Parts: sequence; structure tokens; C-alpha cells
Amino acid sequence: MSKVGIIMGSNSDLPIMQQAIDILQNFNIEIEVDIVSAHRTPEKLFDYAKNAHTRGISVIIAGAGGAAHLPGMVASISPLPVIGVPIKSSNSIDGWDSILSILQMPNGVPVATVALNGAKNAGILAAQIIGSSNKNIQNTIVDFKTDLKNTVIKASIKLKKSL
Amino acid sequence: MSKVGIIMGSNSDLPIMQQAIDILQNFNIEIEVDIVSAHRTPEKLFDYAKNAHTRGISVIIAGAGGAAHLPGMVASISPLPVIGVPIKSSNSIDGWDSILSILQMPNGVPVATVALNGAKNAGILAAQIIGSSNKNIQNTIVDFKTDLKNTVIKASIKLKKSL
Amino acid sequence: MSKVGIIMGSNSDLPIMQQAIDILQNFNIEIEVDIVSAHRTPEKLFDYAKNAHTRGISVIIAGAGGAAHLPGMVASISPLPVIGVPIKSSNSIDGWDSILSILQMPNGVPVATVALNGAKNAGILAAQIIGSSNKNIQNTIVDFKTDLKNTVIKASIKLKKSL
Amino acid sequence: MSKVGIIMGSNSDLPIMQQAIDILQNFNIEIEVDIVSAHRTPEKLFDYAKNAHTRGISVIIAGAGGAAHLPGMVASISPLPVIGVPIKSSNSIDGWDSILSILQMPNGVPVATVALNGAKNAGILAAQIIGSSNKNIQNTIVDFKTDLKNTVIKASIKLKKSL
Amino acid sequence: MSKVGIIMGSNSDLPIMQQAIDILQNFNIEIEVDIVSAHRTPEKLFDYAKNAHTRGISVIIAGAGGAAHLPGMVASISPLPVIGVPIKSSNSIDGWDSILSILQMPNGVPVATVALNGAKNAGILAAQIIGSSNKNIQNTIVDFKTDLKNTVIKASIKLKKSL
Amino acid sequence: MSKVGIIMGSNSDLPIMQQAIDILQNFNIEIEVDIVSAHRTPEKLFDYAKNAHTRGISVIIAGAGGAAHLPGMVASISPLPVIGVPIKSSNSIDGWDSILSILQMPNGVPVATVALNGAKNAGILAAQIIGSSNKNIQNTIVDFKTDLKNTVIKASIKLKKSL
Amino acid sequence: MSKVGIIMGSNSDLPIMQQAIDILQNFNIEIEVDIVSAHRTPEKLFDYAKNAHTRGISVIIAGAGGAAHLPGMVASISPLPVIGVPIKSSNSIDGWDSILSILQMPNGVPVATVALNGAKNAGILAAQIIGSSNKNIQNTIVDFKTDLKNTVIKASIKLKKSL
Amino acid sequence: MSKVGIIMGSNSDLPIMQQAIDILQNFNIEIEVDIVSAHRTPEKLFDYAKNAHTRGISVIIAGAGGAAHLPGMVASISPLPVIGVPIKSSNSIDGWDSILSILQMPNGVPVATVALNGAKNAGILAAQIIGSSNKNIQNTIVDFKTDLKNTVIKASIKLKKSL
Repeated sequence: MSKVGIIMGSNSDLPIMQQAIDILQNFNIEIEVDIVSAHRTPEKLFDYAKNAHTRGISVIIAGAGGAAHLPGMVASISPLPVIGVPIKSSNSIDGWDSILSILQMPNGVPVATVALNGAKNAGILAAQIIGSSNKNIQNTIVDFKTDLKNTVIKASIKLKKSL
Repeated sequence: MSKVGIIMGSNSDLPIMQQAIDILQNFNIEIEVDIVSAHRTPEKLFDYAKNAHTRGISVIIAGAGGAAHLPGMVASISPLPVIGVPIKSSNSIDGWDSILSILQMPNGVPVATVALNGAKNAGILAAQIIGSSNKNIQNTIVDFKTDLKNTVIKASIKLKKSL
Repeated sequence: MSKVGIIMGSNSDLPIMQQAIDILQNFNIEIEVDIVSAHRTPEKLFDYAKNAHTRGISVIIAGAGGAAHLPGMVASISPLPVIGVPIKSSNSIDGWDSILSILQMPNGVPVATVALNGAKNAGILAAQIIGSSNKNIQNTIVDFKTDLKNTVIKASIKLKKSL
Repeated sequence: MSKVGIIMGSNSDLPIMQQAIDILQNFNIEIEVDIVSAHRTPEKLFDYAKNAHTRGISVIIAGAGGAAHLPGMVASISPLPVIGVPIKSSNSIDGWDSILSILQMPNGVPVATVALNGAKNAGILAAQIIGSSNKNIQNTIVDFKTDLKNTVIKASIKLKKSL
Repeated sequence: MSKVGIIMGSNSDLPIMQQAIDILQNFNIEIEVDIVSAHRTPEKLFDYAKNAHTRGISVIIAGAGGAAHLPGMVASISPLPVIGVPIKSSNSIDGWDSILSILQMPNGVPVATVALNGAKNAGILAAQIIGSSNKNIQNTIVDFKTDLKNTVIKASIKLKKSL
Repeated sequence: MSKVGIIMGSNSDLPIMQQAIDILQNFNIEIEVDIVSAHRTPEKLFDYAKNAHTRGISVIIAGAGGAAHLPGMVASISPLPVIGVPIKSSNSIDGWDSILSILQMPNGVPVATVALNGAKNAGILAAQIIGSSNKNIQNTIVDFKTDLKNTVIKASIKLKKSL
Repeated sequence: MSKVGIIMGSNSDLPIMQQAIDILQNFNIEIEVDIVSAHRTPEKLFDYAKNAHTRGISVIIAGAGGAAHLPGMVASISPLPVIGVPIKSSNSIDGWDSILSILQMPNGVPVATVALNGAKNAGILAAQIIGSSNKNIQNTIVDFKTDLKNTVIKASIKLKKSL
Repeated sequence: MSKVGIIMGSNSDLPIMQQAIDILQNFNIEIEVDIVSAHRTPEKLFDYAKNAHTRGISVIIAGAGGAAHLPGMVASISPLPVIGVPIKSSNSIDGWDSILSILQMPNGVPVATVALNGAKNAGILAAQIIGSSNKNIQNTIVDFKTDLKNTVIKASIKLKKSL
């Protein structure tokens, strides 16, 4: 089955990126996690991006903060869909730096950008991508949406009781 | 084969969204184009999002400007991956409104956001998503990247001659 | 008498939205409170917006954070005036995402937007709207403004004594 | 019947504010239009806001650009609902000054803010406010929403033919 | 001698505005302090601004947060120079709302805006204004600048010793 | 009588700064105009700021764009009140660079900042500063405010006729 | 002698980057110009950055727009000082994307960022860097600063004559 | 050997600027540290900038917050390369004021700007500048980059073990 590659620029990004790991494990989707820094290990970035699609990975999730070049550089090399997670690191300017460095890719090299610190959504999006050609995974997404709905319905009932 | 659904909030978005249409046609990927307004045709939005995955669509591209709710609302209903294209409409505040309305989705409901007016990249991303389970399309992406490279190489040669 | 419908996207919005509840209860205006999530319960949103005006509700207050689609989507369906409360949720980009998603509605579908976290003002605005055709409520607003004035006068006296 | 007071800070705001005038005239709602400058005619502002509700006006629309104090100052004096229209004037900083000066009112004194240059939506919101206690006007809004929908439907048909 | 009028929109602004009080008292310049709210006591604002210059006040310092209309409204009525202090209140959007509401006054009605929370600088500026026609006060400013310099010189010596 | 020193960082700032020259000439206030660049003529800046108050100048107006250091550096040296005019130059980032470089002065060294391109208001503020100790000039300001009011009254009459 | 490498992400950046070429040629500093795209020619970027310092280049100037990864990626690989020029390309969000992608590099990998479209300053900075160990070039900078001063002095004389 | 001059506007900037001191001491590069305030000690700034290059300094690092004029003013006077460190001081507007005051220098007077609070990178950049004409220092940079890489490699191994 398809595998999702999850990479991050620094181990300080792990608390956020863990949310992508968790949701994909919940969905029983195989993952492969690593630290790949665009600025400190550029050769590793190159090798990773060059080979990911030949190793059974079908979607890459890349998280980074500040001037976040990891998602875009991976996307420049790999033919796979790359999901970028902007991370609000210390000394970030409210996250704007990370968002714009990931989102505003030039024509030809897209990055599928999710919300600031939105690693959970990155995981869900990866599952949706796999699900677009895999009915089992797509049904998992349908069930997940039903769970979201039920959580709100319960909160609604609880709220009405409390008023 | 997989089909890409392309929708936009208004026919004034067509000049931008045409770039998604063109690149997908270049890639020989089947598309289905429509105008679906979150704010003016909410029922149509509902029907579209509810049924797209049952009609052979495997990725949805949704473009909208201003307080752009179309991509997020489609994503709230459909299990498919949804690519959002922020469009810099007139009276937009430099495009920030459209970007943030599409990007900053809550946990549970991702939208794969591309750059402001980045409809071409939305088309490429849709192809990459299909390509993640279809080697032919993935090879098309590899070729496309080679073309991008060659264009730069030629421009480099031309520049050096001109100096 | 007129009733105000108060909805919010998540129970995490309740601490802010409580201020709308409180001020309307102070004004003796009937309210109906619920959780309606645009992204997790889109059908409930639809039903709510479709029927609110047929159930005696005359103004809707909708609060949401991040890519806040709830107020605008309700406004797209209901003929009632909809007041939007941008909420500064966690992972919000300083509240800009919520403000712009609610404020920058396209021509045809207004949302009456109040300040960031301004649920109290949303309640007062709802009362002013009801008061525009109800002299009793309008007089309540006049009295409320007198109270605001008196609070400042007292603070002024206290300050002058302290200097 | 209810009357809508439309004021603006300068005659240079008229091209934008004309959209509020036009839509309310389309809706057959009585209007009263004037120029009232918070900064150049503060006494007139005072008199206007003090008396509007005693002269049959039930909603006030106030448009202004830059450090836009007109809507908020009228709201501080009048018990009526006040709709604020931020206008992107020359030397404005992309409209942010006008938006924030109108939107970010302190607790106690709301302004119902619409989108930048959103005078048409201000008119529609005023009609919705009147419609909240007047079934005829509410039905006008319902019809208006049907017209919005039909415009999109027609554009959709035209687009599909053209592809 | 000249007197400086110091007003603020709310007693919650006092901790910041106290810095203006303190520096002017250090400079032995007479002050008069009050709470005047543009939005809660508009009549008092009017009376204050109308009469300040007839009561011996020669400069007005006005501090306010959020949609800060106090400085600009006082400036619209009084012929005196008005210094505006943007205050970063709770629920402010990082202070931008207050800064832009005070700074971006239209042609004809200036407000001398100082930095966010810059009440101390407002006091110094008021002294410089008085000093522009009063050599004693101007000399006080010259001495104050010498003190600023000496503080830095001492810190420089201390730093060099510590390294 | 008091004299106003008007300086600007470049002759490209003259079209904006001319508005300060014109209004002060209308008010019959003596002016002295020069180009002083903080970054290209730092010695001249020093000499200018050191001596202005000894040559009969009582207020300085300094206009500059981009990283605008001229107003703040003059204020660091001169005991006079310094009015800063942020100018939206080419390559400016919407004027934010100029505004923040002038406004956000540290404690101890205020600059009286006016709106973006607000040279006319800088001139009026200079007149108000002189007027704070000169009844003739203060009366000129009172008359000027009456003219502002009359312009609005006339525009109001004209608008009502045209409707 | 030292050589400056000038690279840009696209030939559309040439009109801006030409200013760096021109000033360095004026300073008689040897340059080498090329197009190197981080996103379209990642291998070329790698080779360029890996080898530049072995080919006699002592400073690299890299210009790019949007999500501008070129300067930072070159800096991640090369030990040379890298000057980054943010370029305001079409579809840029007022240049913020380019500025933040270049400026906000993580600890360990600096990019010497200049102003938006500031290619001329990039050239001057490169010359200053070479001049820091080369008195001839440093004297050229001293002369250049004298020329800047003289231009202002002449403009000042011309302005005074014209008034 | 070359010396790096490190200056800061206030001793409150020392905790950030210490990172530049530390990294340069690690690199065995001679430094000279001082407090020089553009606004409180303008004469000292002048003397410092005028003479630094005559005293064996080859690169200047200048850190400042708010309306940060120190780096730009030093650059206006000295022929040396000047590295500017924007510092997020209290009352800063999220650091934007400091960034824009340092970055957006006019043509002719560059400042090599690093990230917000990026004093460590300023130190590394200074070493790279010295290294551009000194192979020993350049090798130190090469080694430093190897250390950066090894840190990531170790973190990667540790992460994989933990999963």
C-alpha cells in the first residue's frame, strides 16, 4: 500500500508534526518519518526528494518554520504531491514568514499548503490523496467526517443542557 | 481514468482559473468545469460536494476571491482532496482575505492551498495527486519538470550571450 | 417578541460568545443558543440557516475563528441580518484570518461584522436591530448608553481624587 | 415605513456610497442622503446622530475612509443600528486604516462593519434589518437571493457552452 | 504658564498614560488629567475640546486603544495641537487598530502621533511644543537629552568592564 | 516671528512636501526649505539639527520615505518639536516602512508623526504648535476650521440638489 | 581580484538585477552573471553553490521573487557571504513573500538581505565586502559616498533657487 | 587580523547581541563591543562610524529595536559593510518596525539585514565576509556547516530510534 513520507526541518518541529504521525497511524496508513533540513543537510534533502517516489512513498508531508524552504525544495525535485506545514517557530514573525515561504511557490512547482501548525490537516490531506484512488481509505475519511459531526452534535446537546 | 473537477465562485474568476484548465488539458487529464458560488448558490455547492466523488472525480480544484468560502465548504462535505486557489479580486485587501479564508481551515478539514492566483499550480498539483497512483501521469510530471529546467537553461544561455 | 439566534462553530468559542448571551439576557431579549459548525456539520448549518426566520428568530449572531465560514454561509442562505463575531482561536494568525473571512463578503451577501472577540457588541447590535422597530428595546439601548456614560463619569471623579 | 439614513464623510465617497443608494431604491426603501464629516463638521455629526431616530430613520449607513471616525462616533450617540462602510481612499494604507477604525469599536458601542468599499452590502444589510420586522421587505430579500442564484446558474450554462 | 491637558478613553489606559503625567511633572509643567471617552461620553468630549484652549491649556495629549477616535475627534474641534498616544489594549490587533485610527487623519485635521504605548514621548513632545516659545522649557529639554546621553555612556562603560 | 524649517530626504519628496510649504504660506508663517538626507548627507543633518533652534526656527517638519531616518535623527539632536511625514516612495512596501521608521521612536526622542503623505497636515500641525503661544496664529487655525466646515456644508447642499 | 557572482531565479528578474550588474561594472569589479532557479534547476543551484568559492568568486548576489528560496539555498551550501535581493514579482503579495523567504533564515545560515528590489544596494554591499580587505575598493566606496553627498548638495542649491 | 565591531542601541539589546559575541569568539575572530545609541548619543554614533575602518575594524554589526536607525546611520557614514540585526523590543509591533527600519534602506546605502533577533547569524555573516578574503576563516565556516549537518544527522538517528 501507499506510504506517506513525513519530514521536518528540525527536531524542534516534532511536537507539531506528531499530529500528522498520529492521525495517519489512526488511519492505518504506513508512514516514514525523518528530519531533513534544507539549510543544514541540503544533500540529504536532495537525495530524499530524488528517491522518495521510487521507494513506495506516494505523498510527502514537509513541515518547517521561519524562511521555510524544505517543502518547496522537495517539490522542486520530486514528482510527488508535497504537502507543506508552516510552523510558528520562535523568532518567527507571527508565522507569516513560514506561511509565505511555503505558499507562494512560483508557477510550475506547487506545494499543497495547510494552515499554520496544521500538521493534523496535513495528515488528513495525505489520506484524502491516497483515498482518491483507494476506496478503503476514502471510506475511512467518510467515517472520520461522521465522527467530526458526532462530536459537534454531542457538544451541542451538552451546551443546551447547561444553559 | 481519474477526472478533475474545477469550480469557481464567479465567472469573473475564469481568466485565472483558465490556467488550471489549460495545464490539465496539456497533461491529457479529463476535467469538468463549473461555476459554483458558496454565497449565491449554496444548494448547488452542497450537491456538487456531496456527489463529486461518486461521479468519477478524484480531485477538486476550487478558486474564489475575497472571503473565499467555496474551497473550505466543499472540503467540509466531500471526502476528496480539495485544492484551493486564492484569487485577488477587485476590492480584495491585496489578496490576504482570500488566502487566509482558504488556508486557515480548522483541524479536521484541510484545503490544499496554492499561491495567490496560482491556478496553474493547482492544475499541476491535481496531476501530481493523480500521478501518485498512476505511473503514466507521474511520468508526465517528470517530463514537465524537465521542460521547466530546459527553459531556464535556454534563458541562461541567451543571457550569457547578451552580456 | 423577537428572538436572537446565537450560534458558534465550536464549544471552545463559548467563553467569548457567553458575552453575547449575557448582555441579551440583561436586555430581557429571548435567545436560542447552539453549536453549528460550518465545516463539521454542514447539513445542520444548512437546516439552521434555512429555517431560522420561520421559527421566530429575527437576528442571527454567529461566532467563529480561523477560516471562519459560519457567519458568511448562514448569511448566504438566510434572509435575516447576520452578525459575525471573529474569534481569536489558537493557531489563528493574530485574528486576521477570522476577521477577513467574516468581513470581506462579496456583493450580495453582507455579514454585519463586529470587533475581534466582540461578542458583547454583537449582542448590543442585535438589540439595536430589534430596537429599530421596537421602542421598548430602543429605550433599553438609550438607558444602556446612559449607564456607559455614568461609569466613565464615576471613573473620572475617582481619578481626579487620586491625583 | 422605515427610512435608511445614508451619510458619508466627503463627497469623494459618493461613487462608492451610490451603490447603497441604488440597491435601497431598487428595494423601494426610503432613504435620506447627506454629507456629514466627523472631522470637519463635528457639530453636524452630533446633531445628526442625536436626532436621526426621532425623524423616522431606523438604520444608519455611514461610509468613510482613512482614520474613519464617522460610523463609530454616530454609533456612540445614536441608539440606532449603525452600518459602517470602510472606503479605500487615496493615501489609505490599502484600506487597513479605514477597516480597523470602523471595525475595532470598544465594548458597548458596536458598528456593523461590511467589506472594504462594500456599500452595496451595506444597503442590503439595512434592508435585512428592516426586513427582520417587516415581512414584505424580508420577501424582497428572499427574491433578491433568488436573483443572485439565477445569475450564477445562467453564467454556469454559458460557461459550459463555451468550453 | 502653559498647561498640558492629558485625557484618556478609559481608566484602563492609566498605567500607560501615567508615563506622560510623570515626565511632565518631572519637567515642572502644569497638567490637567481626565477621562474622556469618545464613545461613552461624546458630549464631554465635545465640551472638553471646545473649551480647552480657553482654559489655559496649550497642548492636549489624548490616549486611546482599539478604534481610537478620541485624539482625532478632539483635534477636529480644538485649535490646539493634539498629541495622540495609541494604546495596545486587550483585543487590539497587535496595536495596528489604535495606530491607524490615530495616525491616518484626513487632510485638514492632524494628530501628532507617537509610538504604540509611547505616553512618555507624548509628554516630552508636549514639553518641546511649549519649549518652542519658552527658553526655560527648551533648556529643560536640552538637559534631558544630556541625561539620556549620560545614561548610555555609563552603560557603555559598565558593558566594557563586564566583557 | 516663529519660523518653520521644512526638510526632506530627496528632491523626489518635493511634490508631497510642497503641500506643507503651500499651507504654511497660506497661513503667512515664515518657512525655510531644504534637502537634507540622513543617509547621503549625514554631516549636513547633524549641522542642521544642532543649529536650527538657534536660527529662529521653532518647529521642524521632516519628510522621508522607505527606511526613513531623517525625522528621528533630527529629533535625536534638536530640542525642537519635530514633525515627521512618512512618504510612500517607489519600492516602499505600501508605506509601512516609512510609517514605522518614523513613528516607533524609542522613549526619550519623540517624533510627531502624521499620516502617510500627510505633508499638508504637517504644515497645519506646525501652525497649531506656533499658535499654542500666539493668538493670531491660533485664530488663523480657528478660521481654517470654519472654512473646512463650510466646504462640507456646500457639498452637502449640492449633493441634496443633485439627488 | 575578487569576483562577484550574480544569479537570479528567472530572466524576468533581469531588469531589477541589472542594477547590481551596472554598479559593480562602474566600480570595475569583475562579475559573473547567470540564471539559476532553485525550483526549476535544483541541480544547477547545487553545483553553483558547491563550487562558486573554488572559482574565484568571493561574494554571491542572488535575487528572487515570491517564495524566494534561491538565496537561502545557496547560503546553505556555499561558505561565501550571500546577499539576497527580494524582488516584487507579479502575483507577489506586495513583496512580503519574497522579503520574508529571504530574510528569516534560521540560525546557522545567514543571508545578507537588502531592500525590496534593492539590487543596486546589493552591488554596493558586495563592493563593501570586497573593500573590507582591499583598500582600493574601499576608497571607491568612499568616493561613491562623496558623489551621493554632492548630488544632494546640488539638488539643495537648485531647490533653494526655485523657491 | 580583521576585527568585527559589534554595537547595540541599548544595554537591553545585550541578551540578543550576546549571540553574535559568542559565535565570533568561537570562531576566534577579534571583536570590539560597545553601546552606541543613534537617538541618545548621536555624536558618538558619528565618531564611531567615521573612524571604525581606520581602527582595524572590517565589518560592523549593529543591533537595534523599534524605529531602528543605528545600522542605517552607521552605514551612511562608514565605508565598511554593516550588518543590521532587527531586535524585537518591548512595545515593538511584532518586530515589523525594527525589520523595516533596517531593511528598507534607500539606493546608495545598503545594510546587510539578518532575521529578527538573528544576532548569531550576524556573527556568522561577519565571519563569512572576513572569510571571503581569508582561507582560514573560510575553512572555519566550512567546518561549522559540517557541524550543523552532523547535529541534524544525530537528531535524525535519535528520532528514528524513538519511533
